[in-house]
Amino acid sequence: MPKIISPQVNPDTTVTFRLDAPGASEVIVTGDFLPPRHIETPYGSFAIDGSMPLAKNSDGIWECTSGKLSPELYSYTFIVDSLRMPDPSNVYQIRDVGTITNIFLIPGDRATSYAVNDVPHGTVSKIWYDSPSTGMKRRMSVYTPPGYETSGKEYPVFYLLHGMGGDEDAWLELGRASEILDNLIAEWKAEPMIVVMPNGNISQEAAPGRTSHGLVPPTTALPNTMDGTFEAAFPEIVGFIDRTYRTKADKDNRAIAGLSMGGFHSCHISKQYPDMFGYVGLFSAAINTDKEKRSPIYEEMERKFAEQFKNAPALYWIGIGKEDFLFKDNQNLRNFLDSKGYPYTYVETEGGHIWRNWRVYLTEFAPLLFNR
Amino acid sequence: MPKIISPQVNPDTTVTFRLDAPGASEVIVTGDFLPPRHIETPYGSFAIDGSMPLAKNSDGIWECTSGKLSPELYSYTFIVDSLRMPDPSNVYQIRDVGTITNIFLIPGDRATSYAVNDVPHGTVSKIWYDSPSTGMKRRMSVYTPPGYETSGKEYPVFYLLHGMGGDEDAWLELGRASEILDNLIAEWKAEPMIVVMPNGNISQEAAPGRTSHGLVPPTTALPNTMDGTFEAAFPEIVGFIDRTYRTKADKDNRAIAGLSMGGFHSCHISKQYPDMFGYVGLFSAAINTDKEKRSPIYEEMERKFAEQFKNAPALYWIGIGKEDFLFKDNQNLRNFLDSKGYPYTYVETEGGHIWRNWRVYLTEFAPLLFNR
Repeated sequence: MPKIISPQVNPDTTVTFRLDAPGASEVIVTGDFLPPRHIETPYGSFAIDGSMPLAKNSDGIWECTSGKLSPELYSYTFIVDSLRMPDPSNVYQIRDVGTITNIFLIPGDRATSYAVNDVPHGTVSKIWYDSPSTGMKRRMSVYTPPGYETSGKEYPVFYLLHGMGGDEDAWLELGRASEILDNLIAEWKAEPMIVVMPNGNISQEAAPGRTSHGLVPPTTALPNTMDGTFEAAFPEIVGFIDRTYRTKADKDNRAIAGLSMGGFHSCHISKQYPDMFGYVGLFSAAINTDKEKRSPIYEEMERKFAEQFKNAPALYWIGIGKEDFLFKDNQNLRNFLDSKGYPYTYVETEGGHIWRNWRVYLTEFAPLLFNR
Repeated sequence: MPKIISPQVNPDTTVTFRLDAPGASEVIVTGDFLPPRHIETPYGSFAIDGSMPLAKNSDGIWECTSGKLSPELYSYTFIVDSLRMPDPSNVYQIRDVGTITNIFLIPGDRATSYAVNDVPHGTVSKIWYDSPSTGMKRRMSVYTPPGYETSGKEYPVFYLLHGMGGDEDAWLELGRASEILDNLIAEWKAEPMIVVMPNGNISQEAAPGRTSHGLVPPTTALPNTMDGTFEAAFPEIVGFIDRTYRTKADKDNRAIAGLSMGGFHSCHISKQYPDMFGYVGLFSAAINTDKEKRSPIYEEMERKFAEQFKNAPALYWIGIGKEDFLFKDNQNLRNFLDSKGYPYTYVETEGGHIWRNWRVYLTEFAPLLFNR
């Protein structure tokens, strides 16, 4: 086991990074705890993680210390002589599609919700359902609240969808969904609920490495992800959950939300099946009302919205960061909803299309569900 | 995402490793797919993973190809200018205590059982129980067989214990327990059963990163791991499982087995509670009948064995590798059992104290359970 400590969260909320690499000529740490750099490309200006050099200390260990950091879950990696690598002293990693980064947590404020605290914990299950529409067995993650197993009670259900390239593990790994729910429920801020995190890549059985195709490299080139297939087949998932868990199986007790592509899915599923969901959340949604129509799911949008808002959801919630490249599309959607007088809740935050915002949105959205 | 493919399992079952590290002077791959090297130390001779150098190919990519490999789940890492790092092109990793390695799988023979195949899949849950004896909430992994949720049936239960430094994730991550059970059940080789994988480090709530102590480095220095506390409190776990799942709650339908420290635990728990387990498995067990007694659990061994074998378990199974440093201790236990005429099944394999053997033992042991 590595003998040096890295990262070391210091009492003043600075963080020290260390690497024992005697042969290296240059060591850099890069991560979302540093101010982003903006790079210009032919496709526009993009923000990428900032970086900071390490220097050899008196023991010959590469070392650097950040400025004071606000409470947050942060991610980082090292770059050693141009080669990106995780911190060998830190076993805590998260996978975002094919990229693995290390994490650390500065507790306090909202980030306390992202930590495992000494509170009752729900159960997190990986469960497979038979999907008649695809002929596949498909995997999903299900969170059941503390006490579910023995309470005998029925619970409301929140369907929580990932973005492009993500999978059924994403909200748990990157989104800290089980920690957030445990903590909100323990503080009586959210109703005890079942949270269902299906795999939104309908051409895929399961997350990379969990499929019968073997340990093949993950890909973001997923067919059928935004062609209406997932949305059309969504009642399969709801039916499976209602047969398998003790649910309150009606609109007042069903919510759906998702990030990016998952927000797109949530929008289209909830208006395709207007009697299914009483609560809808679009988190940085990849919503584009002008997009080329590739499925009947995306046709007759105005009529479907009208039907959905005739008996309007108790909550239609839109959250977007000011710097998100999807900001304009969300503004267009809001203009449309405004023009029709359809009620919704709008939350605008700093920042862009990043997990930090989606954890915030989940923490804001979950307490509003099921007539709290 | 990395653009090169590594590892590449070739049709002839050789494997090619690649790394894009233009600035490196030396790149080595080390792993259990290579013949082990034996090193001499003041404490004796030890086998460590062999290594193989990579060389720059015509594209400037470091590359090497192994010899033909037998079907197996293998692990490896790179060493770049003396710095150990995972393969950045391979997102499939396993954590063994504080060490992360990459994996790849050569399918075929027994290793086909270690793959996710297109068969019905059980559910894998992370569930917490209240432990009155420790005052803690503690985490465990539970596998329920395909169909459990809706069958209404009661199932036998197999308690499967990890070794020193492991935790409730170890049998799933390193042991491929859910894949092995899915595949054995699908082939009608094993009875559909619940498999319970508790955390055997009784001073610990949960695996590293899942505790309320934060993202602190894992440690093997775990107090109370072999002092009788876990064994004494084991009925807490059995009681929780019988209250929470649909179990067949009797000796004929309960098995316990474990590797190394978990074999030690299985031996002592099963004789402390002689009416609890009808099936007992010691996998490379850290069993030492002469060890210093630190708990009443370890006292009166002869009387307790006599009581256990008065109404002998349907199966008392001992598996050990010829090169295991615990071979002699297991031989002593067998001599004792032989001297008393207590029946047991003995399986001797090649190799040492390694996960490869424990996956084999699980694959051999599970089909023998519950009157198959």
